[in-house]
Amino acid sequence: MCPKRKTKQAEEIINWNLVFPNQANPAGNMFGGDVMAIMDTTSAMAAKRFSENQVSTVTVEAIHFAKPIMVGDNIKTTAKVVSVGNTSMMVKADVYRDIGNNKLMKCVSAFLNFVAFDYQRLPTAVPLLELGPDDEKDNKRAKIIKESAKARSELLKALDK
Amino acid sequence: MCPKRKTKQAEEIINWNLVFPNQANPAGNMFGGDVMAIMDTTSAMAAKRFSENQVSTVTVEAIHFAKPIMVGDNIKTTAKVVSVGNTSMMVKADVYRDIGNNKLMKCVSAFLNFVAFDYQRLPTAVPLLELGPDDEKDNKRAKIIKESAKARSELLKALDK
Amino acid sequence: MCPKRKTKQAEEIINWNLVFPNQANPAGNMFGGDVMAIMDTTSAMAAKRFSENQVSTVTVEAIHFAKPIMVGDNIKTTAKVVSVGNTSMMVKADVYRDIGNNKLMKCVSAFLNFVAFDYQRLPTAVPLLELGPDDEKDNKRAKIIKESAKARSELLKALDK
Amino acid sequence: MCPKRKTKQAEEIINWNLVFPNQANPAGNMFGGDVMAIMDTTSAMAAKRFSENQVSTVTVEAIHFAKPIMVGDNIKTTAKVVSVGNTSMMVKADVYRDIGNNKLMKCVSAFLNFVAFDYQRLPTAVPLLELGPDDEKDNKRAKIIKESAKARSELLKALDK
Amino acid sequence: MCPKRKTKQAEEIINWNLVFPNQANPAGNMFGGDVMAIMDTTSAMAAKRFSENQVSTVTVEAIHFAKPIMVGDNIKTTAKVVSVGNTSMMVKADVYRDIGNNKLMKCVSAFLNFVAFDYQRLPTAVPLLELGPDDEKDNKRAKIIKESAKARSELLKALDK
Amino acid sequence: MCPKRKTKQAEEIINWNLVFPNQANPAGNMFGGDVMAIMDTTSAMAAKRFSENQVSTVTVEAIHFAKPIMVGDNIKTTAKVVSVGNTSMMVKADVYRDIGNNKLMKCVSAFLNFVAFDYQRLPTAVPLLELGPDDEKDNKRAKIIKESAKARSELLKALDK
Repeated sequence: MCPKRKTKQAEEIINWNLVFPNQANPAGNMFGGDVMAIMDTTSAMAAKRFSENQVSTVTVEAIHFAKPIMVGDNIKTTAKVVSVGNTSMMVKADVYRDIGNNKLMKCVSAFLNFVAFDYQRLPTAVPLLELGPDDEKDNKRAKIIKESAKARSELLKALDK
Repeated sequence: MCPKRKTKQAEEIINWNLVFPNQANPAGNMFGGDVMAIMDTTSAMAAKRFSENQVSTVTVEAIHFAKPIMVGDNIKTTAKVVSVGNTSMMVKADVYRDIGNNKLMKCVSAFLNFVAFDYQRLPTAVPLLELGPDDEKDNKRAKIIKESAKARSELLKALDK
Repeated sequence: MCPKRKTKQAEEIINWNLVFPNQANPAGNMFGGDVMAIMDTTSAMAAKRFSENQVSTVTVEAIHFAKPIMVGDNIKTTAKVVSVGNTSMMVKADVYRDIGNNKLMKCVSAFLNFVAFDYQRLPTAVPLLELGPDDEKDNKRAKIIKESAKARSELLKALDK
Repeated sequence: MCPKRKTKQAEEIINWNLVFPNQANPAGNMFGGDVMAIMDTTSAMAAKRFSENQVSTVTVEAIHFAKPIMVGDNIKTTAKVVSVGNTSMMVKADVYRDIGNNKLMKCVSAFLNFVAFDYQRLPTAVPLLELGPDDEKDNKRAKIIKESAKARSELLKALDK
Repeated sequence: MCPKRKTKQAEEIINWNLVFPNQANPAGNMFGGDVMAIMDTTSAMAAKRFSENQVSTVTVEAIHFAKPIMVGDNIKTTAKVVSVGNTSMMVKADVYRDIGNNKLMKCVSAFLNFVAFDYQRLPTAVPLLELGPDDEKDNKRAKIIKESAKARSELLKALDK
Repeated sequence: MCPKRKTKQAEEIINWNLVFPNQANPAGNMFGGDVMAIMDTTSAMAAKRFSENQVSTVTVEAIHFAKPIMVGDNIKTTAKVVSVGNTSMMVKADVYRDIGNNKLMKCVSAFLNFVAFDYQRLPTAVPLLELGPDDEKDNKRAKIIKESAKARSELLKALDK
């Protein structure tokens, strides 16, 4: 018999970065690969802190580079678990640019799916998610992302037959 | 009047990497952020070579970390333009692990969408894509990815109303 | 006549990092140089956001590596302007290790002194600091640090005569 | 009695890189140390794949930086085993710059000598090399490089007497 | 009974660096975090060579960025043990810029305190320091730094009561 | 009429490095590419300081990895101009491992050929080299290296006819 899964709220993990010249791509913007790496580690910390276990990225969906980020920008990355399965967690990650006067402009967003694993490196149950008052919409977004990925997967499989 | 767009086949860009200890995550596998960065630059080279212009990553879809990659692995990343719009190109990227005896195991895959831009940094037309004999299926996959992303986007927008 | 300096509260800048194997020193702990670099950039972001200008590190005092940080740790770095001069700002930076159960253990601390400069790269006035309810003690700490550095500087100068 | 050494052709390992600003030297070209590192790892992959064992660089000869490489260039590095000894392999490595219209300009070349070692870290026999139709000239080049290095070594030793 | 501590002179460790574009901060100077990292490792080598044991940074005092360092500069970092306790060593580190005509300009300085530890990771005695003819002043400087840090520490503790 | 070339002795540039885990190759030794990069920059500093001009690496000869370097080693790299042409300088670079008791073990050596260039990026004359008492042998070594490379080059050219 499995232990009863505890229920908890998720904590938002915040990560400020000052963009350095060594993070520029040849066009002079912040390299997308570095942005993805920051979103991945920030999200991993959110998933690790929520699950209280080691975690591993399984899929990433809907990365959207909406606005460029430049060298010298202060950027704020946020990551929060917004939906859970048995052993998996969907994290919403957003990267904002500080545009002064306490205003932030959203530049990049993505949904990352993690699995928690125990010390034998086997998938292990995560806590149940108690949604906070501001989490309802992100939880619905996560469900849309998951269902879309599942439907797409069916179509791709049909192609291979 | 626009110049007539030329038609051309796409070239596969190949990128072999030996995975170093400084690319490991704390769990000892190759860090997913580094894998994404390699897929992004390899794909950017494929898009740049196809469009003969500068390119910028706009979206990334369906990154799937199917198998872990370990330090010391020889990995092969391939990237090829498999579908085009007016100014955009969808690139399919795959990362394989060399498992000896001339065999490769697919570990990570993704679809990356690039836009080409000219020297004033404005979106510019890309060549029309002539599919090679082995490109039909990947072209269909790209269309499924695009349509799925579009449908998902409609659902997410409806949520914001 | 100078423009009147505005008065404002300082904002704490938060920076979560997952410690990677490539940040280890040969003894297997997190390399002190990397810790200092993270404290420097996090503090620079706090000073930049407070002064609404470019900033430059002038002095760093009392870096104390109280507890080691290990690969795989989630660490939280905080930085906040705790005292100001005319064109300078003292930032208190702390690095904590996440030890589970929502508990943090302080590992490294330091005080960093920044100067704000304008677009001609000349020192420029910073806002006056309005202390929040929890800032009194850190403001007193900053004054002790500054006075100690000043007295020490006099002793060192006397040695050079 | 030793096992009979198998005979095989060598495979060319290809490595495309997009040159980033963080690979520039202070003069603005691609840093020679980074070029050498890329040639070393690409060649190591060629030697590892040919020998089906771990390999280690022993000597590097005749590195020639014929043309500069700039930030933003797409570069293609090729490496292939072109000559073998008992436990050693000579790899020819070349770095080309993509100059558009499907043309490449050779920028840097070198010959790297590797030794294969087994799991006790002892030198171990490599397969015999079956030259492909285009490999004859490179095999002759490798022999010139080796004989030249041997003669030079004699002269240097005589100096030490 | 402890073994008698040997007495020895300290050796200056020298470290020349060519400042690369990937070491620049967004303002175009050499990033202070990189300067601190170089001072930390150079000092650690000085402490390791003096103590003939592994060492760990405990505190850093009085880092002063007196002059900026630019990309393309040749910089010389020097580090030397200038004072010892039972298991600790104070290292003076200085960073100079080569300004031509065999002249150096001091840009950054700091005092770093290390502890030596043995193979069980326990603090272990360091040799007694025999001052060379040029070391007297730096030894006095180290004592001023230490006493100042101690007095400051008392004041900070009083604040916490 | 050209300005008379001045005559000067060359200065040895010294570079101590503590080998970090992020410099390891998958076999656990220090990555050869990193060793080559350190030799290249140390040699460039020696050539820059001798010529009092910008310099660029043209060829590298006879890199020999005689002994492995491990993580945690203190290594000392030395570089010195040992022979000059009109606009070129041959630098001898050596990397030693600190093996305790003030003893060093030579691990890697190479000869690097640089050209000096002026602010229009054109090759420019370097000073004449005055050999110090210990430089005679290295100057002879450099000549052997140069003559060997020249003879080898003739043989390689003959092959291309």
